[in-house]
Amino acid sequence: MFGLIGNIKAVPGQRDALLAILLENAGRMPGCLAYVVAEDTADAEGIWITEVWDSAASHKASLSIAAVRDAIDRAKPIIAGFGQFIETRPRGGHGLAAIAPA
Amino acid sequence: MFGLIGNIKAVPGQRDALLAILLENAGRMPGCLAYVVAEDTADAEGIWITEVWDSAASHKASLSIAAVRDAIDRAKPIIAGFGQFIETRPRGGHGLAAIAPA
Repeated sequence: MFGLIGNIKAVPGQRDALLAILLENAGRMPGCLAYVVAEDTADAEGIWITEVWDSAASHKASLSIAAVRDAIDRAKPIIAGFGQFIETRPRGGHGLAAIAPA
Repeated sequence: MFGLIGNIKAVPGQRDALLAILLENAGRMPGCLAYVVAEDTADAEGIWITEVWDSAASHKASLSIAAVRDAIDRAKPIIAGFGQFIETRPRGGHGLAAIAPA
């Protein structure tokens, strides 16, 4: 499995709008076993995304999905910057979609 | 919802043993909607745990579960240290167990 833990900074006052865009495609990306979008409780503009994919290839392919590209285009103007992006190798756990959406 | 993103450093050579202990109770803790345990691909001793709970109270209560306390006791000798622990407020996503295990 392939995982990512990423931090995104929203433009001030735009975190809710950015969260909404980021959530649009959750569950609609082939090979995506988990995709959780969360607020950073210590940073009013901070967002954390934690992702698990069945493979790095599935993650890469997701970036070519029309709906995902459209969401990225709409998100860009309200993204102030990116913080940490940590690549992980998930070994298991709870809350991983049993069968990735086809 | 209540979320945590945490980094743990295993004693050298003990990461697999620590991962196994951390995975034991995944899915058996009331109120836990997601609990993913992963290797840090850039740190041979690094582990990331990403958690989503229905509430902070459920997370706190989990630390009193006998099986969890036992796992913590067995994990302590092979934990070299703790890195970041980020508290989050999950807003949604994919891979969140629909109904937290009772």
